[in-house]
Amino acid sequence: MSASESHVNSRRRDASLRRLLYPRSIAVIGASDNPTKLSGRPLNYMERFGFTGRILPINPTRSHVQGLPAYRSLDEVDGDIDVAMIMLSAERTADAVRACGERGVPFAIVGASGFAELGGEGTALQRDLDAAIEESGVRVLGPNCLGMIGVQDRAMPTFSSALDEDVPLKDGPVAFVSQSGAFGGFVFSEAQNLGIGISHYLNTGNEVDLSVAELLGGLVHTDQTQVVLAYLEGVSDGRSLLDAARHAHEKDKPIIAVKVGRSEAGATAAQSHTASLAGDDAVFEGAARQFGILRVDGPEQMLDGAQIFATGRRARGRRLTTLSVSGGAGALMADSAATYGVEVRAWDEIWQAKMAAAIPTYGSARNPIDLTGTLVAEPDILRRALRVAVEHPETDMIAVLLGCADGHAAELVDAIAAANSSTDRPVVVVWTGGSGRPRQQLRDLGIPCYTDPGRAAAALGMLADFSLRPPLPRPQRPTDIGDTARSMLEKARAAGRVQLDEYESAQLIASYGVPCAASRPAQSADEAVAAAKELGGAVAVKLLSDQIGHKSDIGGVRLNLGDAESVREAAADLLRIAHDAHVPGARLLVQRMATAGTELFVGVKRDPVFGPVIVVGFGGVLVETLADSRVAVAPVDTDTARRLLLSLRASRLFGEVRGKPPRDLDAAADIVARLSWLAVDLSEDIAELDVNPLLLDRRGQGAMAVDALAVLARHPGPGGQQTSH
Amino acid sequence: MSASESHVNSRRRDASLRRLLYPRSIAVIGASDNPTKLSGRPLNYMERFGFTGRILPINPTRSHVQGLPAYRSLDEVDGDIDVAMIMLSAERTADAVRACGERGVPFAIVGASGFAELGGEGTALQRDLDAAIEESGVRVLGPNCLGMIGVQDRAMPTFSSALDEDVPLKDGPVAFVSQSGAFGGFVFSEAQNLGIGISHYLNTGNEVDLSVAELLGGLVHTDQTQVVLAYLEGVSDGRSLLDAARHAHEKDKPIIAVKVGRSEAGATAAQSHTASLAGDDAVFEGAARQFGILRVDGPEQMLDGAQIFATGRRARGRRLTTLSVSGGAGALMADSAATYGVEVRAWDEIWQAKMAAAIPTYGSARNPIDLTGTLVAEPDILRRALRVAVEHPETDMIAVLLGCADGHAAELVDAIAAANSSTDRPVVVVWTGGSGRPRQQLRDLGIPCYTDPGRAAAALGMLADFSLRPPLPRPQRPTDIGDTARSMLEKARAAGRVQLDEYESAQLIASYGVPCAASRPAQSADEAVAAAKELGGAVAVKLLSDQIGHKSDIGGVRLNLGDAESVREAAADLLRIAHDAHVPGARLLVQRMATAGTELFVGVKRDPVFGPVIVVGFGGVLVETLADSRVAVAPVDTDTARRLLLSLRASRLFGEVRGKPPRDLDAAADIVARLSWLAVDLSEDIAELDVNPLLLDRRGQGAMAVDALAVLARHPGPGGQQTSH
Repeated sequence: MSASESHVNSRRRDASLRRLLYPRSIAVIGASDNPTKLSGRPLNYMERFGFTGRILPINPTRSHVQGLPAYRSLDEVDGDIDVAMIMLSAERTADAVRACGERGVPFAIVGASGFAELGGEGTALQRDLDAAIEESGVRVLGPNCLGMIGVQDRAMPTFSSALDEDVPLKDGPVAFVSQSGAFGGFVFSEAQNLGIGISHYLNTGNEVDLSVAELLGGLVHTDQTQVVLAYLEGVSDGRSLLDAARHAHEKDKPIIAVKVGRSEAGATAAQSHTASLAGDDAVFEGAARQFGILRVDGPEQMLDGAQIFATGRRARGRRLTTLSVSGGAGALMADSAATYGVEVRAWDEIWQAKMAAAIPTYGSARNPIDLTGTLVAEPDILRRALRVAVEHPETDMIAVLLGCADGHAAELVDAIAAANSSTDRPVVVVWTGGSGRPRQQLRDLGIPCYTDPGRAAAALGMLADFSLRPPLPRPQRPTDIGDTARSMLEKARAAGRVQLDEYESAQLIASYGVPCAASRPAQSADEAVAAAKELGGAVAVKLLSDQIGHKSDIGGVRLNLGDAESVREAAADLLRIAHDAHVPGARLLVQRMATAGTELFVGVKRDPVFGPVIVVGFGGVLVETLADSRVAVAPVDTDTARRLLLSLRASRLFGEVRGKPPRDLDAAADIVARLSWLAVDLSEDIAELDVNPLLLDRRGQGAMAVDALAVLARHPGPGGQQTSH
Repeated sequence: MSASESHVNSRRRDASLRRLLYPRSIAVIGASDNPTKLSGRPLNYMERFGFTGRILPINPTRSHVQGLPAYRSLDEVDGDIDVAMIMLSAERTADAVRACGERGVPFAIVGASGFAELGGEGTALQRDLDAAIEESGVRVLGPNCLGMIGVQDRAMPTFSSALDEDVPLKDGPVAFVSQSGAFGGFVFSEAQNLGIGISHYLNTGNEVDLSVAELLGGLVHTDQTQVVLAYLEGVSDGRSLLDAARHAHEKDKPIIAVKVGRSEAGATAAQSHTASLAGDDAVFEGAARQFGILRVDGPEQMLDGAQIFATGRRARGRRLTTLSVSGGAGALMADSAATYGVEVRAWDEIWQAKMAAAIPTYGSARNPIDLTGTLVAEPDILRRALRVAVEHPETDMIAVLLGCADGHAAELVDAIAAANSSTDRPVVVVWTGGSGRPRQQLRDLGIPCYTDPGRAAAALGMLADFSLRPPLPRPQRPTDIGDTARSMLEKARAAGRVQLDEYESAQLIASYGVPCAASRPAQSADEAVAAAKELGGAVAVKLLSDQIGHKSDIGGVRLNLGDAESVREAAADLLRIAHDAHVPGARLLVQRMATAGTELFVGVKRDPVFGPVIVVGFGGVLVETLADSRVAVAPVDTDTARRLLLSLRASRLFGEVRGKPPRDLDAAADIVARLSWLAVDLSEDIAELDVNPLLLDRRGQGAMAVDALAVLARHPGPGGQQTSH
């Protein structure tokens, strides 16, 4: 089977989805003559909307299906077949995939349900399907999916009810991948209603082969796609998603994603709905921020963003100029803009004077610019004002706010279109009330148009965020990482241990270049006194054991011991506590007291979807109470680490607070980056590592880990899978 | 003039707006024959839409205006005139109001601009208009307003361009008052597009007489109005607004308000747009929460709320049952619901079994309930499932999620309508994609319908919040308030002082029953030592002076002094510091050290719009950094105070945190309520009073003010106005 295997592999290596996305021929296996049946719909849709390629019904029992000549099998077809839509029962699907492989069909779409999402027998069928895919090298979309709509070619291997009625179809630069079939279809329909040009809608189903991540990546690679929309329920291969996001980031193509699972109820529903794992939402949120994925709350926000990104324009900054027929709308827009990080600043006097010359005297040239209601009767005001606005050098984006005025819409739309053509800056319109026709006209001209100022502001904010996103680094491994970590972990594992003690944990992170408070282990009170003397100054004495997690819970920490006597007393006390609590082999750790500083915690863990991640937050009661933490996928460079820290809600604590000098953010960022490499290097060995607190001194004075705890990953045995978490 | 004056007063006392809101006759003074001119539009609109009362054009130069017989003056008209729309220049308006008064016209609407909003001459004209109103007793809407639309009677004393085109007009229980004319018109139009029944649209303009607050109050008093919408730019009479809100609250009629000024840019824009004061947004936000005003971000949210409240239904709890054609939509809805405090809980097993019997086996009966795509071909599934849902005792609200499926919409709409009629619980629909016709059909049936799950969830959240709002108390003055406060303040003022010192401030709040840390003033180190001895235990020694605000900034606080020697040393030190810093008359305050506790701050100040208010927050660096504070209008009762404290973002600090027992929230609430009475009683005398920190002990152990500072209000002289702030 080595020849066949190499054949398979060569196919697998061909990552292009071109023949799937722009097929010239589509076979429908099991095509029904009844156009209203699910298995009859694909033919019906392609006939009705006019697929530009060859439609090939495969039906062993009929010469014609829905008026088209049918083939008894794939083998009877002459010429290439780009896509086979398999509309057979779950039981017959695997064989059909094998037949596709034999016939050299590169892509199959499996519509049948009854696979893993059902469990039991279905799971076995999905395994069989998986094997057929392995053997045949056919790339499969589905099973349990509604298929695909390719708008340009009217390629419609789908039974989505979104095409049931007579729908407008507009091709364009926006592609859409959805893990929900029905809901995805609704959103596709809604997008078409808004006149958003959609090139493709793909529903992924059970993702036995082609995953949402791979599809996103493939779409980003096409020339046509400039914006990708995604509705996600559960990502299985987080790193592939991030690869796709990285490509999108580099190619300046935004991914706008709705991902369910923000709430427990939503996550449970998504999980029970698909067979997929919803994953830890905080990790997805962090990964999305880090890789420039624009996460939104729902379809409306997604389409609002799609409208503005479909223009291909980018914002050079966050400064918005607002021109409004109504002072009230302008004020509201200024409020909404602020919510989304968009600035409506007063123009300088020279430019106010230029604007004032273009508008009625009782208007306002300040920004938000109030053109007054006179505008409706005298649309030239808008034309003149827009001419000034597009020339204003400190305007990064322009919003025009109008309403009703259907009778005067033509001239107003003309004025906006002229301004839009004369600039490469983003121009959006808010047109509230009226028939809605002017909104449609503007959208047809490629000008984003909204009904509500707040929604326009949100879209502008998204555009500015993406336009001004920082470059996506490829973090470099620090060159000074020691090589002791792995052997230390192997030794601990060989001893059957489940966690490292504080002293070992400190040594572990120290080998990654993380500064730790100086400390010495001690077996007895005498040793503790000697260690304290050696360390010098005040010390802390703590119980040292790999058997206890939170030693302060059992009173196992004594701070600020200034003389030998108190060290001795504390040491004796702690050893007694350990004895009483039956902690075998407990020792002591004598640690030099750290100077006070701002407390951070930095955690490392392994996420089942995204792999090693790093978590940061401020320490202390209040911040824990506020659940103020952020996650990033490891590794991160120091710039990313700094942004991560600054994205904490309480980030003002890094600056000057109540006369206390600013903190050493650089040192903290460096430590976070180093720990992120630890997370990557040791992800198979460490389930979780917490540095808490990391004490942050004033700027230039560094940071220091005062306590650390590493929990080992459980390995089921030699060659076994990682099972922690 | 006493007869006329009494006549005026009797009119003023008649608060009913009935003849304005439901006029039987409308005179248009200065009506133009040209229907497209502003002064021609009111007649044109009333003719075109068919005002059911008498239209009375007043024009001295024509016998007919737009085909209607005209009158040369008001006096020529026989019978009552309910409303006069004055469409004259600003200069001629005051006389016209006087003429209305003589003719007995109760209400006038002034459309002209060129009054206070322009400044200069306009301000004089507005003063003249104000005088005419005083003299005549005519109640005036405007000036600088677009007038009113009364949908039921097609009463249209307005030149709003919202009626320019042929617009649908649907009467209903929703009234809308806007401080922006143009934007208000757009929103009115948008509401009509959505099929929301609007009884009235009123634009207030400069509010020389009828304020937005009075109009809201008047509308709430009508039988027709069940929901009031408000677009606000700046409220001048905050207490009247709260009176209206109280009536609305008691009559179970929600006020949904957009108020600009959340951001600095928005507040500035609103202020420059109207002549009004935007006010402190945090105070408005607090007052709105306190009085049950539903504040939303923009018109779309406002109308989303209007749809659901227009049904008149209320939620008995927060539990939502979601029935969906798409598992994806259901999961998204669960997420969105959680965002807005609405719960999508799994049903219990018995009810899951009942639901399972109604839906396909591959659906989910758990909640969110997945009816599956089969629903479209078999609408009876929806009918059966809804029958179970309306019987389910733990369902407070129902959401049905559908999409596209225009061809099958009739049966689906029927099923929903049947369920809706069979229950008094709120039922909403999310219908995404498709032609939009089913959405319109559902709305025509009075069933709220949205395109986006998130927006439906927000509306349901608003409904639940309002349905479950706590009763609005009428706070009772504590009976044990001492009578020393006013005389203390008078003495301080007589001495020309601008603030009280810490000792006096503590005495002031102590007279309102606020526990304060025991303290003694001292003139010298000897007196300080004696005071410390008298107090017993460890003490703090602080500089005591009404000349310094933040004494810790100059090192004027020494804590935890355990013996006489350290007290003496600290006292000498502080007196030296005072001497060096040239603080005349500085004394010392010796205070018993308070036990550690959770730090709160409680502030009292006078807001120019809402009068005395109270501000609460947690103390400490971090919370200041997070700007976590809340405002309420004084006075408040202890229940309101408790809710206010619990609405702080860090409110979990009141509970058990890291093993520390819960705090004495009751004691804190009692103190907040007492200080709110201080705010009310002394609002003319005190500009600002801060208690910081208020130390909150464990539950049952009370709370104690450790520091307080009162700043006196500046009085310009005898009989003068309060000018602080």
